[in-house]
Amino acid sequence: MRFAAFELNGRRGLAVERNAHWTGLFADEEGYPGNLDRLIADGANLEAVAKTVEQGHPVDIAKVRVLAPLSRPGKIVCVGLNYRDHSAEAGFEEPDYPTVFARFATSLTGPYDAIAVPPESSQLDYEGELVAVIGKGGRHIPVESALDHVAGYSVFNDATLRDFQFRTPQWTMGKNFDGTGALGPYFVPSVALPPGCKGLRLQTRLNGEIVQDADTADMVFDVATLVSLLSVTFTLEAGDVIVTGTPAGVGMAHKPPLWMKPGDVCEVEIEKIGILRNPVVGGSTNAR
Amino acid sequence: MRFAAFELNGRRGLAVERNAHWTGLFADEEGYPGNLDRLIADGANLEAVAKTVEQGHPVDIAKVRVLAPLSRPGKIVCVGLNYRDHSAEAGFEEPDYPTVFARFATSLTGPYDAIAVPPESSQLDYEGELVAVIGKGGRHIPVESALDHVAGYSVFNDATLRDFQFRTPQWTMGKNFDGTGALGPYFVPSVALPPGCKGLRLQTRLNGEIVQDADTADMVFDVATLVSLLSVTFTLEAGDVIVTGTPAGVGMAHKPPLWMKPGDVCEVEIEKIGILRNPVVGGSTNAR
Repeated sequence: MRFAAFELNGRRGLAVERNAHWTGLFADEEGYPGNLDRLIADGANLEAVAKTVEQGHPVDIAKVRVLAPLSRPGKIVCVGLNYRDHSAEAGFEEPDYPTVFARFATSLTGPYDAIAVPPESSQLDYEGELVAVIGKGGRHIPVESALDHVAGYSVFNDATLRDFQFRTPQWTMGKNFDGTGALGPYFVPSVALPPGCKGLRLQTRLNGEIVQDADTADMVFDVATLVSLLSVTFTLEAGDVIVTGTPAGVGMAHKPPLWMKPGDVCEVEIEKIGILRNPVVGGSTNAR
Repeated sequence: MRFAAFELNGRRGLAVERNAHWTGLFADEEGYPGNLDRLIADGANLEAVAKTVEQGHPVDIAKVRVLAPLSRPGKIVCVGLNYRDHSAEAGFEEPDYPTVFARFATSLTGPYDAIAVPPESSQLDYEGELVAVIGKGGRHIPVESALDHVAGYSVFNDATLRDFQFRTPQWTMGKNFDGTGALGPYFVPSVALPPGCKGLRLQTRLNGEIVQDADTADMVFDVATLVSLLSVTFTLEAGDVIVTGTPAGVGMAHKPPLWMKPGDVCEVEIEKIGILRNPVVGGSTNAR
């Protein structure tokens, strides 16, 4: 079971896939259950939602515009240095506690939208990552029950302007250029994936060449641990997303550095979830 | 002209002060123009809003519960190391570019609400700061017209758990405990303050003793420069807030460190805007 937010001829809709077959409903059609932001915020039963959407019409997923499954998460919590081999290549020690930074919703973009090399920097780098979406909120969530709070998963390209990231001690500015955080293409409910989304292959490809290739089981802090540790500090709310960190192979670790440039295509794939595919363009892109 | 969001006997309302006289309307009363989140997001004419609210009834501002003027800003952009003397005391070099981190809305609390020393840390520190609230959004905003994008100002206590702040290279976790970011008590439109809110005295008092005492004109990056530089990276939207940094005198710079503890009262005052007054308690406080 996978969900997609989509647009066709100016109409937005929600589609669901089962057995490689997509069906959907437009927002203006009878029975439309709401968008994923709303459904997840409301703690909707996703199995029931899927059954409703399956009453709709067939959707040719290759012929609609697939949007980011969530458009305005309350929090976008990003975890740095969460794969051992990436910490080493980035020159950081392996952490004993999660390194956390934030993205603003204005930095999000769709799964197939263009990511821009802005006029102010040429150091645009890719970071393929797994995203966990909070379903049931809470604070001080025990690790044993933490996965009960995860509604599902998606894929992220945490594209980063490296010079802006390291211009000050805090990474925020390099991580928040408009339209650099590609999310999607699908939202996959937890029930359709292994517990904690472990053991799935995460691969990033730049112009078809494999640049990151890892197993989601290799995180330093797994999804359950992240949910539990983050909730010591703050209340997690339905719809919050946790971007769980990138494995080795980022462009800045290449010699010479492998920056993304106009004309490139960057793909991030996580097995059983989907493939982000973002062309790279020049110039400034505003928030969507 | 100053605005306050308030609550009395379970009813929420909006009040305005002119000539030291407060009038207000409850949300369920005829003519109520909406809350400040909504009004600012909609780009409402604040002078017209004030005239409407003045048609209401007198409000004894000391006898209502004053709430944070904004409850769910789209972004809470915090600037570190923005006063020379504070950079020095914190052991950082004076930056040539703003050091930016983020707070999540779950970390906000009201102007007179208790701030908790959580069970996980005893290093609760105060940081008195000026807040600028974006009125008109934009990207690539020239510094010359940047102040046209600021709807008004408020006061912030960026209370921080220092051990969590410095546990990893990123400060996020120490800056985001639930209920540690006190905002208010009033929202003051730009027209009622000096340009860029410069030249106002900012003072933090712990149990009545002055611990921070500065002039808002002493920022390294003034409000206009912050708006312009931030908007190089991301789109600023109406209702976004910029927390502009703290001057010297924070508790961690004292020898021995001066942490806030249960029973303390911390005040942050900015001339012409207002006074935050937060008691400190023990135990865990959830997001409001």
